[in-house]
Amino acid sequence: MSDAPAHAPHVYRLRTGYGDTDQSGVIHHAVYMRYLEDARADYLRERGLDFAALEQGQRIGMAVARATMRFLRPARFDDLLDIEVRVETQRATMLFDYRVLRGDTVLLEAQLTLACIDLEKMRAIRLPPEVAAACRP
Amino acid sequence: MSDAPAHAPHVYRLRTGYGDTDQSGVIHHAVYMRYLEDARADYLRERGLDFAALEQGQRIGMAVARATMRFLRPARFDDLLDIEVRVETQRATMLFDYRVLRGDTVLLEAQLTLACIDLEKMRAIRLPPEVAAACRP
Amino acid sequence: MSDAPAHAPHVYRLRTGYGDTDQSGVIHHAVYMRYLEDARADYLRERGLDFAALEQGQRIGMAVARATMRFLRPARFDDLLDIEVRVETQRATMLFDYRVLRGDTVLLEAQLTLACIDLEKMRAIRLPPEVAAACRP
Amino acid sequence: MSDAPAHAPHVYRLRTGYGDTDQSGVIHHAVYMRYLEDARADYLRERGLDFAALEQGQRIGMAVARATMRFLRPARFDDLLDIEVRVETQRATMLFDYRVLRGDTVLLEAQLTLACIDLEKMRAIRLPPEVAAACRP
Repeated sequence: MSDAPAHAPHVYRLRTGYGDTDQSGVIHHAVYMRYLEDARADYLRERGLDFAALEQGQRIGMAVARATMRFLRPARFDDLLDIEVRVETQRATMLFDYRVLRGDTVLLEAQLTLACIDLEKMRAIRLPPEVAAACRP
Repeated sequence: MSDAPAHAPHVYRLRTGYGDTDQSGVIHHAVYMRYLEDARADYLRERGLDFAALEQGQRIGMAVARATMRFLRPARFDDLLDIEVRVETQRATMLFDYRVLRGDTVLLEAQLTLACIDLEKMRAIRLPPEVAAACRP
Repeated sequence: MSDAPAHAPHVYRLRTGYGDTDQSGVIHHAVYMRYLEDARADYLRERGLDFAALEQGQRIGMAVARATMRFLRPARFDDLLDIEVRVETQRATMLFDYRVLRGDTVLLEAQLTLACIDLEKMRAIRLPPEVAAACRP
Repeated sequence: MSDAPAHAPHVYRLRTGYGDTDQSGVIHHAVYMRYLEDARADYLRERGLDFAALEQGQRIGMAVARATMRFLRPARFDDLLDIEVRVETQRATMLFDYRVLRGDTVLLEAQLTLACIDLEKMRAIRLPPEVAAACRP
């Protein structure tokens, strides 16, 4: 996905926390899952999608089905990170493509596939049309 | 509570994880909240209380209303910790008294008050009698 | 501390994350420790204090010695929270007084005592004068 | 790796915690990173490898360089999970292959690549021979 989209990615900025570090002195790898989730929520909010409402109203959820992460360089406490988010929707899934940067340095590349789920029956369903529409570039 | 109960406390053993540390080289203080919760769940399970069922069946939950923690000494990665749990029930609350030890050394003392909650109305209610009964020494 | 300081508190704003919730549908109580820490780091940064440098340069750390938290009302996913931070320094400790609000509603009140630590000898020492000076109202 | 190794995997058992859930009612996907890390530490401990000592003595660390996770089915609060761990070492990396099961049901499949790091120079180095030796089936 890295060279395809001509449109600019959504960018979410965050600051790393002290408790996000581990004793090796860098941000613990597991913490990035939270960073990516916060970036995803920020993207969806900006697009006008209210997932809390989808969950409670229509009982539709988005579940992480697959994740791939490449850790290139470590982040440290108090770093200001930019997370680039690119999204592509398919029939029943959303593909999120992320890059985490500190300035111009790429620290992490990640891809997550989220599956649309009927929360009552706990099975995959088609993405609601308003979600697909909102994610169009 | 420390000298009152003649009966032995419930003891929950756990091992600290690598991601539980922070860059100062010790277990991050926030992580103990999880340790205490796991000790609490272990205590309740042993007493035959099924909180998942209470939550889903009767729509009753237990919410932390108050917490006090005294951090005496740090724990480190790969430490084997023993958490002593003592419980007292009142009309609408449970009082948990904890000590976290590594061998004979006390690392943390904590008290948590959990309030019994009607999850539909989100307000305090009386403790179910089976909970009070199960927690009797 | 609530009515004493005539000066305005430092305010740190954050948005709750999806993974910060638990199955009861509210922000998990343990997560507030992280929120408070992020608010504290924000306060110190704004006052020009670089704790990463203190840690690595002078080998001085600030360890949470005591915490008291009163959970008044639950927060939910995607809430925008304001954390008010008030600080008082003593010879070897910093006292942080917090209120977490959503709009005008107070959700949490908390007090944390941080002890100044010589990280080599792992024992309490006097607060560096620049820290005490920076925290003066 | 699933059909190759004739030898039995290392199995680490854990119980899920309440705070590990999210508001959709299942264990939050990010929490599995911690579960996998705890399983990894358990494997290494059983093989007699002391990573705390490697880190502090020889200043050698193991950093997660790549992670792939397939979430097949959700876990719930209070579930007893078994994590199967299979390991293969290469010149400068360790490959961990995991399956997380509840009874016979596979919930997650994951592969992590850990790179051996010189913590002073923060660059990849060859795996210490005692690590490679200890991980041989």
